[in-house]
Amino acid sequence: MSNISSNRIFINDVAVRDGFQIEPIFIPTEQKVSLINALSRTGLSKIEVTSFTSPQAIPALADAEEVMKEIERLPDVIYTALVPNMRGAHRALRCNADELNLVMSVSETHNLTNLRMQRSQSFDQLAEVIAFAKSSDVLLNVSLSCCFGCPMEGDVPMKEVLRWAERFIELGVDGITLCDTTGMAYPTQVRELCTAFRELWGNTELTLHFHNTRGMGLANVLAAIEAGVNRFDASLGGLGGCPYAPGATGNICTEDLVHMLSLMGLNTGVDLDALLMCARTLPSLVGHDIPGQTVKAGKVSDLHPPPAWFDEVAQRARVKALQP
Amino acid sequence: MSNISSNRIFINDVAVRDGFQIEPIFIPTEQKVSLINALSRTGLSKIEVTSFTSPQAIPALADAEEVMKEIERLPDVIYTALVPNMRGAHRALRCNADELNLVMSVSETHNLTNLRMQRSQSFDQLAEVIAFAKSSDVLLNVSLSCCFGCPMEGDVPMKEVLRWAERFIELGVDGITLCDTTGMAYPTQVRELCTAFRELWGNTELTLHFHNTRGMGLANVLAAIEAGVNRFDASLGGLGGCPYAPGATGNICTEDLVHMLSLMGLNTGVDLDALLMCARTLPSLVGHDIPGQTVKAGKVSDLHPPPAWFDEVAQRARVKALQP
Repeated sequence: MSNISSNRIFINDVAVRDGFQIEPIFIPTEQKVSLINALSRTGLSKIEVTSFTSPQAIPALADAEEVMKEIERLPDVIYTALVPNMRGAHRALRCNADELNLVMSVSETHNLTNLRMQRSQSFDQLAEVIAFAKSSDVLLNVSLSCCFGCPMEGDVPMKEVLRWAERFIELGVDGITLCDTTGMAYPTQVRELCTAFRELWGNTELTLHFHNTRGMGLANVLAAIEAGVNRFDASLGGLGGCPYAPGATGNICTEDLVHMLSLMGLNTGVDLDALLMCARTLPSLVGHDIPGQTVKAGKVSDLHPPPAWFDEVAQRARVKALQP
Repeated sequence: MSNISSNRIFINDVAVRDGFQIEPIFIPTEQKVSLINALSRTGLSKIEVTSFTSPQAIPALADAEEVMKEIERLPDVIYTALVPNMRGAHRALRCNADELNLVMSVSETHNLTNLRMQRSQSFDQLAEVIAFAKSSDVLLNVSLSCCFGCPMEGDVPMKEVLRWAERFIELGVDGITLCDTTGMAYPTQVRELCTAFRELWGNTELTLHFHNTRGMGLANVLAAIEAGVNRFDASLGGLGGCPYAPGATGNICTEDLVHMLSLMGLNTGVDLDALLMCARTLPSLVGHDIPGQTVKAGKVSDLHPPPAWFDEVAQRARVKALQP
């Protein structure tokens, strides 16, 4: 609002990675490919295509290579892939990923639980990947988990988050994503962290990754925008989840986000109707209802006719209004 | 955030009126009464107890008198009731309602559809009620529907909203509620309307009533707070709905709202744990799942233990870290 520095917002859809990885069923490769192709044509800035992790660890994304190779690549879309280590980096580069999205957590307990390493060990591994990848022209983004709190440790101090961001920025990465991995972020906190980050590193691409676990997803987006952030991760249909909150909703929903931003006069470059078409294909693809709300309620601009009896009621009211 | 003028936020829970009125089953009077009594003890500022409309029109609230008479009345809680006309006002005053909440729509089509009168006819009726009620010490609030858009007409000009508010303020009402009846509001619009209202009428109590139909509920609250608003309607469990959006969520959820505001350091006076206890009783009361998310995901402060294998993994990582 007052602090919106530009009206362009860049959106990275993570549904086929962050969403599909927790689905209990394996989405067939060709269906992943056609969804990604459809998403490419909506005008999204970036798509997180897959994850080059061990197929044993995440069987849902065991077809990472096939998906990367079979999708149509549009020139204006960045096709990124999650990469946890050097082995994943080699795989992603062989598939010509435009960007490697490297991950670690700023919470020691979460990093140990999720990646089975200390944070310093994760950092050293990723630093190697960065050094190696610097010889190619691949883009490098680092997603830091639990930047707004850890479900096991609780608060994560802001300076701890900034310290890990700084270490990666010093290695020359292109972007940092601050992730609210389990939906613990709240607006004043978001504003404070984003403001601090932007004051320190105005030239590093800063992306925010929110979950809507406790209903604050779009409020957090608003707070981030007010702090000058213009890049967001979001998930088609709101797919994704949080292992600590069964039954809770997952990532913020891409079409709900685009819908709100469009109403606010911000330019996402995304064709909302095309995006809604993609979202409508999800329930049959994943076999369950999806959290996204615009797909159920329609856009604000989708008007409804008055009820059939309207003219009669209106006429009766007019007659009554004329009576003394 | 920057514009927050005071840290006190007043919350009016409307679940037993706005929520229950669309439930297909009749909630037994004694269950309504015990829920209201429990809500009273959570520290809410106001509870919309019922609606003095025709029992034929809204059978779910046909027990308005019994409910009003049987509830325990705590001195710090305002017990308000929806009143559509003079007949409703008489009924509410006989039950000693603390406040009459008068309703009309700022959209002509919506007013005709919902109240079967022209807006000017509604205004004249409500003006009579106000003149009559002024002789008592009952508080008077006017809830204006469709202030952020009409599902049939579309945009409702801001000056139209302000014109109807002004007419009621000139009659000396205590408060105005700007209602986003079908969840069409978006943050920049909220900020603009709330700012305009507060600049015109700084001394009139201004309440905002949002629905979460398209996921923007708490983002709109944030925008309103930034414009200096400190009163909100919300519904326990997020009960309520929108006839134009079947399957979509209803009013913003009281416990999700209190949860967010508490994290932001704002004081709602509400005991969140007590409120969550109330929310947990709803699914069995109404016979279906509720949209509220904090009740499912837990509060941000509800931490989780690491998995059982954590110590082993941590130890293995420590050993590896010591290796050269």
